[in-house]
Amino acid sequence: MVDINENFLSLGKSYLFQRIAEKKTAFLQKHPEADLLDLGIGDTTLAPPKVAIEALIRAGNQMLDSPIGYGPSTGYLFLKEAICNEYYKPLVSSSLSKTTSYAPSSDEVFISDGAKSDTALLENLFAKESKICVCDPVYPVYVDSNALAGRLDPGYENAIYAQCTEENGFTPKPPSSAKEPVADIIYLCSPHNPTGIAFSYEALKKWVDYALEHKSVIIFDAAYSAFVTDPSIPKSIYEVENAEKVAIECGSFSKGASFTGLRCAWCVIPQSVIRSGKSLNALWNQYKSITSNGVSYPIQKAAEALFTPEGKCAIEENAKSYMASAQKLHSGLKNLNWKVFEKPSAPYVWCKSPVPLSSWELFDLLLEKAHIIATPGSGFGKSGEGYIRFSAFAKPSAIDKALVRLSQLYQEA
Amino acid sequence: MVDINENFLSLGKSYLFQRIAEKKTAFLQKHPEADLLDLGIGDTTLAPPKVAIEALIRAGNQMLDSPIGYGPSTGYLFLKEAICNEYYKPLVSSSLSKTTSYAPSSDEVFISDGAKSDTALLENLFAKESKICVCDPVYPVYVDSNALAGRLDPGYENAIYAQCTEENGFTPKPPSSAKEPVADIIYLCSPHNPTGIAFSYEALKKWVDYALEHKSVIIFDAAYSAFVTDPSIPKSIYEVENAEKVAIECGSFSKGASFTGLRCAWCVIPQSVIRSGKSLNALWNQYKSITSNGVSYPIQKAAEALFTPEGKCAIEENAKSYMASAQKLHSGLKNLNWKVFEKPSAPYVWCKSPVPLSSWELFDLLLEKAHIIATPGSGFGKSGEGYIRFSAFAKPSAIDKALVRLSQLYQEA
Repeated sequence: MVDINENFLSLGKSYLFQRIAEKKTAFLQKHPEADLLDLGIGDTTLAPPKVAIEALIRAGNQMLDSPIGYGPSTGYLFLKEAICNEYYKPLVSSSLSKTTSYAPSSDEVFISDGAKSDTALLENLFAKESKICVCDPVYPVYVDSNALAGRLDPGYENAIYAQCTEENGFTPKPPSSAKEPVADIIYLCSPHNPTGIAFSYEALKKWVDYALEHKSVIIFDAAYSAFVTDPSIPKSIYEVENAEKVAIECGSFSKGASFTGLRCAWCVIPQSVIRSGKSLNALWNQYKSITSNGVSYPIQKAAEALFTPEGKCAIEENAKSYMASAQKLHSGLKNLNWKVFEKPSAPYVWCKSPVPLSSWELFDLLLEKAHIIATPGSGFGKSGEGYIRFSAFAKPSAIDKALVRLSQLYQEA
Repeated sequence: MVDINENFLSLGKSYLFQRIAEKKTAFLQKHPEADLLDLGIGDTTLAPPKVAIEALIRAGNQMLDSPIGYGPSTGYLFLKEAICNEYYKPLVSSSLSKTTSYAPSSDEVFISDGAKSDTALLENLFAKESKICVCDPVYPVYVDSNALAGRLDPGYENAIYAQCTEENGFTPKPPSSAKEPVADIIYLCSPHNPTGIAFSYEALKKWVDYALEHKSVIIFDAAYSAFVTDPSIPKSIYEVENAEKVAIECGSFSKGASFTGLRCAWCVIPQSVIRSGKSLNALWNQYKSITSNGVSYPIQKAAEALFTPEGKCAIEENAKSYMASAQKLHSGLKNLNWKVFEKPSAPYVWCKSPVPLSSWELFDLLLEKAHIIATPGSGFGKSGEGYIRFSAFAKPSAIDKALVRLSQLYQEA
């Protein structure tokens, strides 16, 4: 008789976005005519760059003329080299710590179908006993994947939480070495989901130094790096000196290049991240060769085209457009006496309503009264209670409408 | 300090096809002019059906006009319904056990990027203590993924092996209930990789009955179902009565539709597979929602097009072509006094050379003397020792050339 993996029983009740989807469906059944504004999930609303779709189409036609079979399980060299040469090298040369920044080589880059898969599956590299540390609030995938691996109890109480609070500007410091257990696997996301706020170079350096001291590994989720324009904010953790000894970086084409429906991402595991005498890079190579036959060839060709001048320009324009919406939402909410914080570095606005409410109360109020979907802050962790996240990936017209409705909501409240 | 997942230390030295690739590279460095014939890995050499590429291109253009964001993590309904209506329903209506065959519904179908990923990751559903049973020889992914999960010791000795031998026609019976421990998770592949030989309805029924009796779960890898033409051989395990209570089926577009480079597959988990009081279908839904954002939209549209009359016809033509090569290779080897067995049901020929050699000796001989790549039987398990697998997915011209060279090899030997 086979039993189930009992770690499933430790999982939270339902995945946050599933619960939102259920509430949305129920609302639409009751109000089929409602003009619902979805500022919930961070899904892109602009098209992928034309040059990427053209490359996809070319690759498709090429497959008809001359069949392409299995690709490498860790991705094609052409895409790995584009990421190294066109993304990391320019970043390093313009980086704040010019002499120490690390530019990965192509054998350190792994192509995947999403930063979600990578951040969820990378835990497979580590011992089951490892202590995990996450920010609170946090993208639920980091904790749920570790719960499935047996590292968390049913309430997830035994993770180390680095609280993102108004007091620390939502960029927490590493755990105190004296008072807290050692964090073995540290998940950081910058710009941060859900707050939209990024780690400064100095704030991130504290985490790298902590990981160096404690031989921890940082899984750095850089899915929102395309939106960073402030030169004092690192886009890559490898801009911080010695990060290549402790950090795995997950990058993505989803948000910057509107690839959410196309599915392509990468992670970097430097050869110099050695634990238990083994190279994590080599272990991940083994893991990928057992569990994957790589990413679709036309999709990798589409991703490669993002590194052409036309592709880069399109990403920049898309990012500007989303960030303009974020800025408008941020100012608009401020004017309506919502509590907003520092300027976001990603298209999310993290805020509190003028009337104190729990996150799900606020979610329900927004849905019922303003027909707006947002994401309850408490769904991202205890410290998110009372907050809500608006996604500025929505269409500009939806942002405008939402602000009008929110101004009326406030008058009613 | 973080340690690695020590299960990596249990893994076999290197993944079979990686080792072959290394030997191939070394050979080509020594003999850059050699006309190497690759009858090794089962990679398709025909193009995907034109109708699929046309759908891919249409989907790409559609994404430019009206952005498609995240898809469902378990796949789009349009593809799930095509699989249910166009694949399973006709199968059931023409099945051997007409009254009992099971046609899955769309909520039982999960779209993925490959049967490799599915067969490797499905073990996450089960308790770590589960005993696994595999055929020997076997596709290495089943055992390697379980070794990574901590279910196998370094020599993989503690799996239950169902030996595929000449005596049992390479279709073994389930373990003896009296003499062997209970097999909790059973991996079956039919037509079988590497032997190319399929389970008959009766042979498969014995396994389903065993699983029913012992509350085991069968993971049935049907990646080669497109090549089955003999009506006495089931394409799907759900043609066997009550299989929907014990079996997960992994299907794939890779081999039949030459999708190896496009990446799309599915698995079926019937709602009626309940273990420890939980529906495995619901658990896999949770697993997918945590670890994946689904398969690329244009790829799912390409897969959907395979169910049009044009797509079905193309798959049939491709399958005929590969099977004609397999038949030619099978007869040719027989004429050259190689030991071949019953007619294969997939484009693989499993055989022994006229001169007794170990599998790797035979591999090296074929590479050095005939410039042919084949796959050593022992790489698939102990019972594969002495055998070699030729893949008939190679181009027909390569099959012809290989037979000429093999006839000369034999004369020399």
